[in-house]
Amino acid sequence: MPGQGDDFRTIWLSPADDAIVQIIDQRRLPHEYRELELRHWQDGLSAINDMAVRGAPLIGATAAWSLYLAARTGGRSETERAATELLKSRPTAVNLAWAVKRVRRAMESLPADADLAAAIREEAEAICNEDIDISLGIGHHGLELIRDIARQKSGPVNILTHCNAGALATINWGTATAPIYLAQKEAIDVHVWVDETRPRNQGSQLTAWELGQRGVSHTLIVDNAGGHLMQHGQVDLVITGTDRTTRTGDVANKIGTYLKALAAHDNDIPFYVALPSTTIDWDIRDGLQEIPIEQRDTREVSHIVGELDGRIVLVNTTANNTPISNYAFDVTPARLVTGLITERGVCAASEEGLLALFPEHAS
Amino acid sequence: MPGQGDDFRTIWLSPADDAIVQIIDQRRLPHEYRELELRHWQDGLSAINDMAVRGAPLIGATAAWSLYLAARTGGRSETERAATELLKSRPTAVNLAWAVKRVRRAMESLPADADLAAAIREEAEAICNEDIDISLGIGHHGLELIRDIARQKSGPVNILTHCNAGALATINWGTATAPIYLAQKEAIDVHVWVDETRPRNQGSQLTAWELGQRGVSHTLIVDNAGGHLMQHGQVDLVITGTDRTTRTGDVANKIGTYLKALAAHDNDIPFYVALPSTTIDWDIRDGLQEIPIEQRDTREVSHIVGELDGRIVLVNTTANNTPISNYAFDVTPARLVTGLITERGVCAASEEGLLALFPEHAS
Repeated sequence: MPGQGDDFRTIWLSPADDAIVQIIDQRRLPHEYRELELRHWQDGLSAINDMAVRGAPLIGATAAWSLYLAARTGGRSETERAATELLKSRPTAVNLAWAVKRVRRAMESLPADADLAAAIREEAEAICNEDIDISLGIGHHGLELIRDIARQKSGPVNILTHCNAGALATINWGTATAPIYLAQKEAIDVHVWVDETRPRNQGSQLTAWELGQRGVSHTLIVDNAGGHLMQHGQVDLVITGTDRTTRTGDVANKIGTYLKALAAHDNDIPFYVALPSTTIDWDIRDGLQEIPIEQRDTREVSHIVGELDGRIVLVNTTANNTPISNYAFDVTPARLVTGLITERGVCAASEEGLLALFPEHAS
Repeated sequence: MPGQGDDFRTIWLSPADDAIVQIIDQRRLPHEYRELELRHWQDGLSAINDMAVRGAPLIGATAAWSLYLAARTGGRSETERAATELLKSRPTAVNLAWAVKRVRRAMESLPADADLAAAIREEAEAICNEDIDISLGIGHHGLELIRDIARQKSGPVNILTHCNAGALATINWGTATAPIYLAQKEAIDVHVWVDETRPRNQGSQLTAWELGQRGVSHTLIVDNAGGHLMQHGQVDLVITGTDRTTRTGDVANKIGTYLKALAAHDNDIPFYVALPSTTIDWDIRDGLQEIPIEQRDTREVSHIVGELDGRIVLVNTTANNTPISNYAFDVTPARLVTGLITERGVCAASEEGLLALFPEHAS
């Protein structure tokens, strides 16, 4: 495994061979820890499409490293082809477009005789290092919220999270989990309610796994349970991630996030969204109308990965002829979001709030 | 199978041998249709505990038929013992207590030399026949709501339901599904969004199965998806069942119902709860404070039943050491419920609304 705690990484260049980028095969977790080797940019595209990697920041980093592999094996034209294909793979994830655009810009400013692969490698490494800095920035700002709650109550600070906006979704630390990991470092008593997160079970398979690895107290619940817990005072704070945030603070995140935001609002529980500013789409104002919501393979709903007698198997939980619909994300309107935790600070989920932290986007 | 459509039954006395009560093993659906034979009252208790039967009305009927078996094999003292044990099995299901109380009352009024088993058999048959009448009553009143929507729009009336408040939860017709089946008989174009209903998947395994059997158009979705569909105008009406309703209209139902009620409220979508008046607990006023919520086996969350190469298997979807919590129900406050559909009519979810239909409980 590529380090623990501070040294943990979700994507890295092989120390033995710089023609190989390594990732964790997140589809095998929590049953098996396995690394995958990416040797061609198509391997990176498959890793994104098949969700061996997921999470907006990690998808962006994987795209950048895929472009490095394309440059290494096929030069500039292959890199352009890879960029086009990568952009098509996950329309909701704005980080992917951002990373590709950033690499393209680096390519444009490069002299014709320069080492393209070396330049893109540098860019990919920078993207990863900056992502770690961003996660730690989010962590420190979110930590303040947890500290405040810890001061006001006895017993653990109960935090509910949905999906995996954890270390596994980024390069390390995560977005929603960064404040939790930093609170743990400070020995604040935290306990995390982990939403299972159907249909792909990123909560039970990824978030529970990484919290367990780092020794953070947690309890897995089905997605249906969060409202009940909130009604009974068992949740102090909700922190989720986001795949895309509008200029006005609307938040697109894993399907089901909206339901938890409604329940938090109904029970006066703070609902925060942790995000690197790279996931802000400054061009759109109305999340419900303007963010395209992917419909994914219905087999994600009908079939589930599990462990049976030591084997990892895929079982069918439905009748074979059952019609299924599988929307991957929903949009939580800004009015339900208490605040946004960014690498520059915490702000209201509004254009004014975001522009106060990111004045360069006031146009 | 015990008949289709009008003749369908979920529990029946074996035509060949009146020492045997038959049920459908609902744990095998949708992969396999299998009937179980109950020969002793303990078989009935196990069927309730292991959820071979579920749904408030069917649990009540199963308790009544179990008492018949107890009387047949062990007489009055055994029947008393069975009643005590049955009452302990599912504290949230008020129908169970109601059915046991009803049989006890029949026993009390019986002369010492009367045929106890015959008397309880008569009571159990009456409970089943009355349940069918109640479901059809709910169906006819709920049908009006569907008719109204059908008149006002083109295309299908989209109805979302949670869990299984279907024929399989009752003796036939169901509660939430009865209006849908009657709409289908009238050739109204209906389409049902079926919540998967984690952790036991009663939606994907039971509701989708019975709608499919009867040819009602439906689409399975994960529990997380309903809010998104409501935001985008794809739900015209929500109808759920309930395990227990307070005098004031608070509704205890399968965990996650509260989240759907919040989303319906947020999107101005009517949210109705279909219930036989036997599930009203006239003694309590505050559902959140007074209805005990069962915590069930955590293996319901960690393990899932599915089909693999023609076999029905139980797979583990979590890491083995993951802590899990499993609340079975939640309470939807009356303020989020548009109306209650009872066998006597539709009323507001309030004490005034309920007492207008059930004035005998004004005291």
